[in-house]
Amino acid sequence: MRDENERGAVNEDSGAAGGLYGGIFGRGGIAAETDDRAWLRALLDAEAALARAHARVGLVPAEHAAAITAACVPEAFDADALGAAAAGAGNPVVPLVAELTRRVGGDAARHIHHGATSQDIMDTAAMLVARRAGGAVAEHTDGAAELLAELAAGHRDTVMAGRTLLQQALPTTFGAAAAGWLEGLDTAAHRLTEVLTQRAAAQLGGAAGTLASLGEHGPAVVAAFAEEAGLAEPALPWHTERGRIADIAGGLGRVCGAVGKTAGDIVLLAQTEVGEVVEAGGAGVGGSSTLPHKRNPIAAVSAVACAEQAPGLVSTLFAAQAQQHQRAAGPWHAEWPALTRLLDAAGSAAAWLCTSLERLEVRPEAMRANLAASGGFPMAERVTTDLAGELGRSQAHERVRDACAEAADSGRALGEVLAEHLAGRRSRARIDELLDPAGYLGSTGVLVDRALAARTRRPRPEPGGTGPSTGERR
Amino acid sequence: MRDENERGAVNEDSGAAGGLYGGIFGRGGIAAETDDRAWLRALLDAEAALARAHARVGLVPAEHAAAITAACVPEAFDADALGAAAAGAGNPVVPLVAELTRRVGGDAARHIHHGATSQDIMDTAAMLVARRAGGAVAEHTDGAAELLAELAAGHRDTVMAGRTLLQQALPTTFGAAAAGWLEGLDTAAHRLTEVLTQRAAAQLGGAAGTLASLGEHGPAVVAAFAEEAGLAEPALPWHTERGRIADIAGGLGRVCGAVGKTAGDIVLLAQTEVGEVVEAGGAGVGGSSTLPHKRNPIAAVSAVACAEQAPGLVSTLFAAQAQQHQRAAGPWHAEWPALTRLLDAAGSAAAWLCTSLERLEVRPEAMRANLAASGGFPMAERVTTDLAGELGRSQAHERVRDACAEAADSGRALGEVLAEHLAGRRSRARIDELLDPAGYLGSTGVLVDRALAARTRRPRPEPGGTGPSTGERR
Amino acid sequence: MRDENERGAVNEDSGAAGGLYGGIFGRGGIAAETDDRAWLRALLDAEAALARAHARVGLVPAEHAAAITAACVPEAFDADALGAAAAGAGNPVVPLVAELTRRVGGDAARHIHHGATSQDIMDTAAMLVARRAGGAVAEHTDGAAELLAELAAGHRDTVMAGRTLLQQALPTTFGAAAAGWLEGLDTAAHRLTEVLTQRAAAQLGGAAGTLASLGEHGPAVVAAFAEEAGLAEPALPWHTERGRIADIAGGLGRVCGAVGKTAGDIVLLAQTEVGEVVEAGGAGVGGSSTLPHKRNPIAAVSAVACAEQAPGLVSTLFAAQAQQHQRAAGPWHAEWPALTRLLDAAGSAAAWLCTSLERLEVRPEAMRANLAASGGFPMAERVTTDLAGELGRSQAHERVRDACAEAADSGRALGEVLAEHLAGRRSRARIDELLDPAGYLGSTGVLVDRALAARTRRPRPEPGGTGPSTGERR
Amino acid sequence: MRDENERGAVNEDSGAAGGLYGGIFGRGGIAAETDDRAWLRALLDAEAALARAHARVGLVPAEHAAAITAACVPEAFDADALGAAAAGAGNPVVPLVAELTRRVGGDAARHIHHGATSQDIMDTAAMLVARRAGGAVAEHTDGAAELLAELAAGHRDTVMAGRTLLQQALPTTFGAAAAGWLEGLDTAAHRLTEVLTQRAAAQLGGAAGTLASLGEHGPAVVAAFAEEAGLAEPALPWHTERGRIADIAGGLGRVCGAVGKTAGDIVLLAQTEVGEVVEAGGAGVGGSSTLPHKRNPIAAVSAVACAEQAPGLVSTLFAAQAQQHQRAAGPWHAEWPALTRLLDAAGSAAAWLCTSLERLEVRPEAMRANLAASGGFPMAERVTTDLAGELGRSQAHERVRDACAEAADSGRALGEVLAEHLAGRRSRARIDELLDPAGYLGSTGVLVDRALAARTRRPRPEPGGTGPSTGERR
Repeated sequence: MRDENERGAVNEDSGAAGGLYGGIFGRGGIAAETDDRAWLRALLDAEAALARAHARVGLVPAEHAAAITAACVPEAFDADALGAAAAGAGNPVVPLVAELTRRVGGDAARHIHHGATSQDIMDTAAMLVARRAGGAVAEHTDGAAELLAELAAGHRDTVMAGRTLLQQALPTTFGAAAAGWLEGLDTAAHRLTEVLTQRAAAQLGGAAGTLASLGEHGPAVVAAFAEEAGLAEPALPWHTERGRIADIAGGLGRVCGAVGKTAGDIVLLAQTEVGEVVEAGGAGVGGSSTLPHKRNPIAAVSAVACAEQAPGLVSTLFAAQAQQHQRAAGPWHAEWPALTRLLDAAGSAAAWLCTSLERLEVRPEAMRANLAASGGFPMAERVTTDLAGELGRSQAHERVRDACAEAADSGRALGEVLAEHLAGRRSRARIDELLDPAGYLGSTGVLVDRALAARTRRPRPEPGGTGPSTGERR
Repeated sequence: MRDENERGAVNEDSGAAGGLYGGIFGRGGIAAETDDRAWLRALLDAEAALARAHARVGLVPAEHAAAITAACVPEAFDADALGAAAAGAGNPVVPLVAELTRRVGGDAARHIHHGATSQDIMDTAAMLVARRAGGAVAEHTDGAAELLAELAAGHRDTVMAGRTLLQQALPTTFGAAAAGWLEGLDTAAHRLTEVLTQRAAAQLGGAAGTLASLGEHGPAVVAAFAEEAGLAEPALPWHTERGRIADIAGGLGRVCGAVGKTAGDIVLLAQTEVGEVVEAGGAGVGGSSTLPHKRNPIAAVSAVACAEQAPGLVSTLFAAQAQQHQRAAGPWHAEWPALTRLLDAAGSAAAWLCTSLERLEVRPEAMRANLAASGGFPMAERVTTDLAGELGRSQAHERVRDACAEAADSGRALGEVLAEHLAGRRSRARIDELLDPAGYLGSTGVLVDRALAARTRRPRPEPGGTGPSTGERR
Repeated sequence: MRDENERGAVNEDSGAAGGLYGGIFGRGGIAAETDDRAWLRALLDAEAALARAHARVGLVPAEHAAAITAACVPEAFDADALGAAAAGAGNPVVPLVAELTRRVGGDAARHIHHGATSQDIMDTAAMLVARRAGGAVAEHTDGAAELLAELAAGHRDTVMAGRTLLQQALPTTFGAAAAGWLEGLDTAAHRLTEVLTQRAAAQLGGAAGTLASLGEHGPAVVAAFAEEAGLAEPALPWHTERGRIADIAGGLGRVCGAVGKTAGDIVLLAQTEVGEVVEAGGAGVGGSSTLPHKRNPIAAVSAVACAEQAPGLVSTLFAAQAQQHQRAAGPWHAEWPALTRLLDAAGSAAAWLCTSLERLEVRPEAMRANLAASGGFPMAERVTTDLAGELGRSQAHERVRDACAEAADSGRALGEVLAEHLAGRRSRARIDELLDPAGYLGSTGVLVDRALAARTRRPRPEPGGTGPSTGERR
Repeated sequence: MRDENERGAVNEDSGAAGGLYGGIFGRGGIAAETDDRAWLRALLDAEAALARAHARVGLVPAEHAAAITAACVPEAFDADALGAAAAGAGNPVVPLVAELTRRVGGDAARHIHHGATSQDIMDTAAMLVARRAGGAVAEHTDGAAELLAELAAGHRDTVMAGRTLLQQALPTTFGAAAAGWLEGLDTAAHRLTEVLTQRAAAQLGGAAGTLASLGEHGPAVVAAFAEEAGLAEPALPWHTERGRIADIAGGLGRVCGAVGKTAGDIVLLAQTEVGEVVEAGGAGVGGSSTLPHKRNPIAAVSAVACAEQAPGLVSTLFAAQAQQHQRAAGPWHAEWPALTRLLDAAGSAAAWLCTSLERLEVRPEAMRANLAASGGFPMAERVTTDLAGELGRSQAHERVRDACAEAADSGRALGEVLAEHLAGRRSRARIDELLDPAGYLGSTGVLVDRALAARTRRPRPEPGGTGPSTGERR
């Protein structure tokens, strides 16, 4: 999974966000899609799309729309100054429009922001940010799925203890475990892409959501605006109908859930006493400031830390659906940091999982050894099943449980004790056969194949974002 | 919206849950789909479906499956006793299987629970409960949407103040406001139905998710089991891949969001000083224990209270996705009360909203009066727009803002002040025309029509639950 | 820790709540303090205290107050009927007062509920429920602390691997680990008791929080009411100032946090591959429906499941602080189920932890064996420290890390490799001494003693609740 | 409350965080206490305190400790570089120590970080950040309380409608409403200060919390370290006992709750139709991008938006208490962004509330007019109370309710209708007297005085942070 030659860099993430915590919580280039520059770009894209939409409908000369579009260059604007002014206006669109107007100048400037309210631009920009950053999240998630698909295929028949409530239960394969992780990540990536494609819509309603200042042209401008912005056209303005945001939050929360489950399992498998996987991070990675011997699964740990931001942020966004009348007095603003941080968390979590998987060394011999060390107990179910036909499940269960207890208490081999308890019913040879884990893997192979096939059937996230929307069904 | 003859009952909800708080937090029959009886029914349905699945695959004689099915009658089981025993086993399936085995007896009893682990039955039952209770949630949500569709159609042209940040902004119509609520509820009902249909899957994996005790029959039994249970067939066991639960939680959280938004607006519109709607609850409803004159919008308030349970419960379920290895040591159990309470909350919230809407008296005259009382200020944008063509938006905005400030400070009529400020540009008659709210409703009519049409196009939740699953795409 | 003779019962919890999930999520008698009967009792206690308060101030004849008090018997009231009527009134107090009035009859009945609004009674009852149920939570938490104090003292010198990021790091003692758990639970019990004593206040303000209907007697009645109810007297009515509820929620959330941490560690220590503790639950406890050999740490798992309800419920109660004007339109009602469920969760979590600790078998030999199996690596820090004086920390760290890497890669003994790397600086004998875990336990003994001493200094929760309040400082 | 001359600046917050959203979500200088520089400063303060602690105990020469302290200058370190390296190490302490060692050089460098693990430094720094930023939060909260104390005193007798469920209920005073807000903020500031003083402790335990590398000096070094760091000395290392973080989160969440309640009420009182307060923000503040007449209460809205971040972040921190063994594999890291953002949210929320209150214009005449417009209905309770002595409360309630209903239905004056219904019991003059709001203010004056007196009694947060800790009781 990992290439020795690629090791060694302390932090190989060239896309990490800056700052003291950006390396951990802004991994995989996600910050470039969620930072001020990304927001500025999205806000300006929205204003430019609006001007072009007016031009398409014939309300604005094309050259004016072109002039406005040409001025919509994020680098030309000062995020700090806009942010300071936003404190007075309640959002950064008001000062942005003022500055854009100044920059465009002349007749063209008169057409800027026409028919829009601040929230139209903010919401459209939020959806562009969600599409772009969410696309990056989906790509990282898909990337993790791809690495898991390789693991699942490569370890389709690698026997490992299946564990329930953290106790060895029955044998399974590492491939089946990886297939389960894969299914979680792949469906999460798929759902996120789907929700971004279907639900990320443009916003245009004007001051009270009536499109009044556009006269009879309102619906036509909305349609053109959505197309220019590359977003779905909404049936209605959604200034205070925030199901779209909740759906996207849900999609991101699922990614974090799938990442957290997988990374959590890696941490458990990497425990000193289990040792079935190792995150081999190379020099300077995963080391301890005091303990020279340690090889911490730091990428998996970081993935968990990022993923654990999600439930609280998801709840903030679900709570923020309660938006008053035609524009909310607080809950709308409350979405901005929560959505941005949730995108960061999901993107970083998925990117860290990719890193963990890239670093992962799988140790089949440790898997076998751990299973052997548990003395055949995990295979007890098989003996029960073998006996159930003649004894009934309840009685078979009790018989085997009693033998297990005796073996555990006495320290004798389970096969030996079972042979005594089942004398006349099963030979020692048959019992040994029943206790062989490799013979009791059930449908693990089929399940691995299914997970791989299911992944093949699903459309993959497109590199560079989710692409222009194909419209929404609802 | 409401019929005088139907008023008067203190609590007309024959399906309310019992207990001190059941009338408020267990409304609209939802409790009948989430209480112990409903869970018992679902657990037994799962065991019965499993037996029949075995019979279909030929592993169990049909008459034994029939005997097992016949014994799966919830009324025959004692929830208290099972619950007490569940504390020892960690879940109620272990004692349920023991009791079912005792009841069935004979050869048939030997086939009970074959190939399954407790979680298979619990998860399948949870999905049945989610489908049934979620179906009821969707119906109540759809019911609210239907009432809103009537309101939107009936008040398509009823002029009302549009309010942003709780300030009058521009005129809109009550129909447009209702259309916005409708869109939120209708899409929430639709998404919930979709997620239940696609994602509510049967669970069958056996002790470690390998289907080992079913030998080569595993996949066939799973397929038959899903069909018998009326649930989607999963590609893989999902014992610790809980995206399905998260998706359902998200669907329920959106219902609560849409209900909370709508009910919150009703509370705001019903304020003494606004008075644009009244919840006319009849004797004993919405009264105060001390204030005889009050007519509290108690149904809307109750809807809000139910809806506000959701964000926390959603976060619990999203957090619970971090399930270890092949079966979780805590997070799985943690889902049970959270999912059950979330279904209750969503169902009750939607049912209360229906009640609120049934009781709602709309007061167009108060809407007109409130708009008039704000002295034409909400129409100021229209004057700006009218001037923007010749002055540019910024200058037009400033001119009108100055006139507004002067009118507000002096107490003089806005039309009069504007006529002075715009002397030579606009006549007083033109200004009065511009300040008439009814002439500045933009696309509200179109938007109402769109919301009604969109509702017509969407499939409606089927009465009596979401029906057998049609399978899932992923 | 456990007595063999006490084993065997499938569910030894005579105080468990009824119902299918009551055995798991309503453990330890907590439900008796949070169920409808407990709420009814609290509501009636509030009404009775109010009548007696009036009598003390001279507004009501003492015999009438006595008659009202005598009628306040929860068994005489029908929770289902009151709950159904509560749906009309918005809360159960309105129908409760009507029924109480009917039952008392005569002149005395005229004095019922005088000066109070529904919320006064509901909030006072909520505080009584919080005090009583919270007292039970504190007792269970203190009970767990007591069991942990025994473990800490008994295993003060039992060597165990200290684990960071789930990797063996350095040796510690099981006593030190138990002392850490103890400190968490003991301070949580202490803080909960403190917050209940200081912050659980009576509520009396009348319809708008002005005490208007009590004329000039308002403050005197409030003081007498608080004393009669056994709650703190608030400086002001707190109808919409819900810091008290948030503080209590925080106190309960901390209990759940401390329980979740401890129970989670037990689950980790009980893993098959670690095996340092076992929950020995006796027949029927912790067994699997399919796996006869398993001994699941089901009490710890159940404790985790209960504890994981808390963060979401805490967030619901923190969010519900946003209560409008003089009485809230939703957020107040929203507190009832969330607070009740949070009390249940905290009480059950703490009770389950007690059960887990009572069942706990500690295995010092496994602790030693696990530490030995990791080949001395956890002791590497000690070698670093020993060298740091002459090499500086950084160089010492590097030298030791290189030796560790070589030992790990080659499979040779760490002592041997270190002796080579440090030839001339440290003898093999000195290295072996440095690698002996028992010689590197630092201040673990002192820390255990401190935790035990700290517990001794703190006041303990009183059996039977937190007792009458001693007033609040703020 | 506000001074005309101070108006006019678009954003008067010289301490606002930079960036597009920093003006809104990083207000009042809070960011200066939570940004990378503040964290760097705290991390270096911890390392310096550690060196000095060693010197005090005699383990390190004083001049070396001084050299280390002298090098601990945040400006000398590059947060971006450290953050990038932190991705490899799992936290920024590892690269920080490396860089600090390089900068100090010589013999002194050998003593850096001695006896500490990364988490010791991170946790101590987190507590320093919490103390410093939390101190700023407390000051802003106290500042809002001070403004509210002025409002409460100044409007002690300003009659206003008391509103329950957003319906006019009974008269109260604006002073009483302000006193309620004051009590919430003042107790929240007090509790936050208390929790920071008592619970913000130093952390020092070494790699596994045993203080092993300090030999017998462990406890002495911890004591000296805490004193040097200006934090409480903990009884035990708290690497995975996170009640302190949860307590601080709870304290911050209460601040947000109190701010959200107050700001939410301001938004409601500022509604166009209520108009009892106005946020007079001057030019460029609170304006709309499209609606020239609007005066949005943008400071209160921003306060709400900041406050609504809290419940989700609080839940993240409460969930993160479940930390494994001696150092957590994810939940610890998860605290960093959540705690930082929660400090930001609380500080900004409180700062925005101060701004809102500074801008607030109170309109007593609108309060009187709104009460008058509701036609005496809010006074109906008083008539009930007046009659209750002779009719009993229930019958009195019914009689008055019937009259209210008739008056409401007929549009006749309530006094007139009551005079008819109560003919022979009450004269019209008496009824008019009873319906006068100013005569029915109950104990509002007393309550205002109490809130003011309670504030006087409580210790106030000290400017410049919470000062050195006085130790903790538990």
